[in-house]
Amino acid sequence: MEYFSGHITGLIEQLSLLPGIGRKTAQRLAFYIISQPEDKVKRLADSITTARMNVRYCRTCCTLTDAEECPICSNPRRDRTTIMVVETPRDLAAYEKTGKYEGVYHVLHGAISPMLGIGPDDIRLKELMQRLQTGEVREVIIATNSSLEGETTAMYISRLIKPVGVKVTRIASGVPVGGDLENIDEVTLLRALDGRTAL
Amino acid sequence: MEYFSGHITGLIEQLSLLPGIGRKTAQRLAFYIISQPEDKVKRLADSITTARMNVRYCRTCCTLTDAEECPICSNPRRDRTTIMVVETPRDLAAYEKTGKYEGVYHVLHGAISPMLGIGPDDIRLKELMQRLQTGEVREVIIATNSSLEGETTAMYISRLIKPVGVKVTRIASGVPVGGDLENIDEVTLLRALDGRTAL
Repeated sequence: MEYFSGHITGLIEQLSLLPGIGRKTAQRLAFYIISQPEDKVKRLADSITTARMNVRYCRTCCTLTDAEECPICSNPRRDRTTIMVVETPRDLAAYEKTGKYEGVYHVLHGAISPMLGIGPDDIRLKELMQRLQTGEVREVIIATNSSLEGETTAMYISRLIKPVGVKVTRIASGVPVGGDLENIDEVTLLRALDGRTAL
Repeated sequence: MEYFSGHITGLIEQLSLLPGIGRKTAQRLAFYIISQPEDKVKRLADSITTARMNVRYCRTCCTLTDAEECPICSNPRRDRTTIMVVETPRDLAAYEKTGKYEGVYHVLHGAISPMLGIGPDDIRLKELMQRLQTGEVREVIIATNSSLEGETTAMYISRLIKPVGVKVTRIASGVPVGGDLENIDEVTLLRALDGRTAL
């Protein structure tokens, strides 16, 4: 791609290393960045370095944050007796957006996947078990994804926690609200049927 | 979004200012960036600032480059008698990828659009007309997009250049190679018919 010359090609290459950003999108982004005012571009570059340098794992729930403890864990109004286990900080954010969950979280940073060689020791399970030691926790809600890996992880965790004597629940799986039955896959339809509740 | 805390939210906000990057993608990218090794993240941030600071317009064809003159204009093997007029450096790149065009380019950085208030003075037309003064140019190929704006610009340029006595051509418009007739819009089908050539 010598027709763009050094710095532009370099930027395009760097951008296309990002997940989900192909060569074409990287090109579009690069030209956009170049066309922007200097201070705006500086803010973008700075936010990248600053975030990387200052972000660490919350010592309690393992989510990404920039303090010792994340805003949720350090909020005295959150209910510490209920822990929701999620795979990623993004999943945490998804539940936070509902504004209805008042408990705390635990972020695993992944799910067990024999296919990808990710075992129980590769995710933040030890940290979760340690949190249960205090005897304060009454319920662990497993909110891993409804994928093969998520289900495997959910099963594994529930078997691990049951001997401790803490209640373990799993978020419901079924037809999404607003979903059109005819467009929903068979596995989900059967799940929804199995999980039916009385009206 | 207080649940992510400062630096992460800041990065997400900066990323979502980029064109075509929504909140969700910005979040995904931000968490990816945070999870990467420090030096890799630094390379990304640096490439952004470096590109912005060092890129300028080629003094001849107006494309974005980091030297006085772009690699194409400064290549002695390119045919200076033919100028292809494109809207953006990305369009230039698209033609360069074919590897078959041996002439030089002129980048307008936009197209005439009365709707968006972009007139002939807002694109690099003056620079194109200046290049024709030398008498060296024999053909100007107009390769603006096949959109309303692109066509308007093509018409405008051709009327501007004809009095100078330089040959003006327009790239063909028609059915794309590999295109399925039934999926192609009517305007394109009619253009393809109008532009038919003898076999």
